[in-house]
Amino acid sequence: MNIHNFSAGPSILPPEVLEQASKAILNFENTGLSLIEISHRTPRFVEIMNEARMLALELLKLNPNEYTALFLQGGASLEFARLAYNFLDKESIAGYVNSGTWANNAQAEAAKIGNVLEVASSKSNQYQTLPEVKNVDEKLKYLHLTSNNTIYGTQFKNFPETNVPLICDMSSDIFSREINFNQFDLIYACAQKNVGTAGVNLVVIKNTFLQQATADIPNILSYKVHAQKESMYHTPAVFSVYVSYLTLKWMKDKGCIKSLERHNLAKATLIYSEIDRNSLFYGSAKTDDRSLMNAVFYLQDENLEQKFDELCNLEGISGLKGHRTVGGYRASIYNAMPISSVQHLVQVMQKFERMILK
Amino acid sequence: MNIHNFSAGPSILPPEVLEQASKAILNFENTGLSLIEISHRTPRFVEIMNEARMLALELLKLNPNEYTALFLQGGASLEFARLAYNFLDKESIAGYVNSGTWANNAQAEAAKIGNVLEVASSKSNQYQTLPEVKNVDEKLKYLHLTSNNTIYGTQFKNFPETNVPLICDMSSDIFSREINFNQFDLIYACAQKNVGTAGVNLVVIKNTFLQQATADIPNILSYKVHAQKESMYHTPAVFSVYVSYLTLKWMKDKGCIKSLERHNLAKATLIYSEIDRNSLFYGSAKTDDRSLMNAVFYLQDENLEQKFDELCNLEGISGLKGHRTVGGYRASIYNAMPISSVQHLVQVMQKFERMILK
Repeated sequence: MNIHNFSAGPSILPPEVLEQASKAILNFENTGLSLIEISHRTPRFVEIMNEARMLALELLKLNPNEYTALFLQGGASLEFARLAYNFLDKESIAGYVNSGTWANNAQAEAAKIGNVLEVASSKSNQYQTLPEVKNVDEKLKYLHLTSNNTIYGTQFKNFPETNVPLICDMSSDIFSREINFNQFDLIYACAQKNVGTAGVNLVVIKNTFLQQATADIPNILSYKVHAQKESMYHTPAVFSVYVSYLTLKWMKDKGCIKSLERHNLAKATLIYSEIDRNSLFYGSAKTDDRSLMNAVFYLQDENLEQKFDELCNLEGISGLKGHRTVGGYRASIYNAMPISSVQHLVQVMQKFERMILK
Repeated sequence: MNIHNFSAGPSILPPEVLEQASKAILNFENTGLSLIEISHRTPRFVEIMNEARMLALELLKLNPNEYTALFLQGGASLEFARLAYNFLDKESIAGYVNSGTWANNAQAEAAKIGNVLEVASSKSNQYQTLPEVKNVDEKLKYLHLTSNNTIYGTQFKNFPETNVPLICDMSSDIFSREINFNQFDLIYACAQKNVGTAGVNLVVIKNTFLQQATADIPNILSYKVHAQKESMYHTPAVFSVYVSYLTLKWMKDKGCIKSLERHNLAKATLIYSEIDRNSLFYGSAKTDDRSLMNAVFYLQDENLEQKFDELCNLEGISGLKGHRTVGGYRASIYNAMPISSVQHLVQVMQKFERMILK
């Protein structure tokens, strides 16, 4: 049976990427050795690391003389702390926009390191809308946002215009749509949604902002050290970097972000139309704030849950359950998700409606 | 051509592990999905994480009621800082034994977080011997050691008897020999030598010592948080954890540490005998301090280097070059290295001697 993988992350990868990654485990580019048992200082791996860093900038249309891309370990959760260690101190204050669970976590971690001001929040309405960000104090050290909220299915369409350096966690929507990435001073994303698989984070940092980072922290936490060492300060997560490299190449082959965005819009339109049309379901997030990556929806009648889950299982639909903290359903439709899987999900939702209403 | 992989890390893995890992990328345990595109909260992956944690304790003969095993991201380099954030503060002092480059790095990172006392050092003789550790001040918060020095090829055979909690970086020799692991309060190891591939670290911590960790640090740095969340505080490096799981199972199948140690001793005896016998080479580390994992050696006549490298290439010997900071050669003979590869290397060294001396 063909499985349709709607997992929120780690999530679906292009079949071409999986095939190449699987081959590389047995025999990496005909070296007779496995990718995962060679030194990370092997010239070919150094090349892959650098190509991946350059490809990331190219896809984001960022000038490699102005921005540095790094592949680091530790997940977005480590970046929550790392960015604060680099840019906050006991005197300065950073602004945080609390638009979801991960935004909230980023803020809480930074609050253990420096001073944090919650500039805007939609916590009081259970993150079903995006908070309005206005009158940003120009004295803030940086303003932190989370572009897409995986759990609640909301996504910023525009970002605040401010002179304060913008830091954005794009873990769940980087490379999915054309925006002006030049407006950000630091972008970070865990790989396991649109950039590859778990174990590595992409960090993209403006060189002028990097200069403001403190050097008075452990090397492993220092963006300056990682940048100086071209992402090879210590042994990188070789396999995860390789999967990111393959995924970035796949994105370029697919026509870069412009083409991926068109594809993502088509998928999102399809699933949201069905959620709105189907009498058994409803979408939770405010319509204007809906995410193109994670469509979150619920059954009008919770008692039908078991039946719908059974049908999904029968129909090869996997990973559709909502986050354990909010329940319901979540169709994650990242770059690698084919439109045929979304069409299939829509058909299954229609079939379920006929089953129940007959 | 059969390649003999002497890489110091990431390093050789058992063929059975590579085959299973490669398969799991395409179809994980007949789920029809790839291991690297499923949620880490999938029941089967949660099971794998827990089995890997239990297997690690079982192989080390540590009581799971007294010790907790974790698989974390960030490499040993992150543990250098993390352990200091957990156990050091501005009032306390930690002792460090400076027996090699990594020991030195661990100490330097901790010195950025708290107070550090160098208890013993062999830096002045280029780490060719192990420093003698004596009269350890009982007021130290912990004493940090590096059991095996990958770059210089030295290895502690015994550890200091002291009431001070012992922390040991066993990145390059864990699971390779039977020692009393109960003498340590915290053991850590990057995976890419004896525990799997890069991207994950094994951290084993005594529960009574864990209780002494501060809670006043970011969650991602807190051993307490990672222990409470059973190594699932955030998305783990799924693939790297899986490779560790397979490697731990392989070690158990091979007869656990006792049997691996016998095998490692045989390999080490073979290569060191040849280094000592062969008139073209010499070993650099003090004989008594030699490592069973990394045999470091040099050519008596440096001018022969190119010729020896060419012969190694022809004979399928890979990864034998010494660390870029010290040059020479290094035969890393970790658990997964078959004795036949060491025999082959010895034959190549003998062949080289005949070529040169003829």
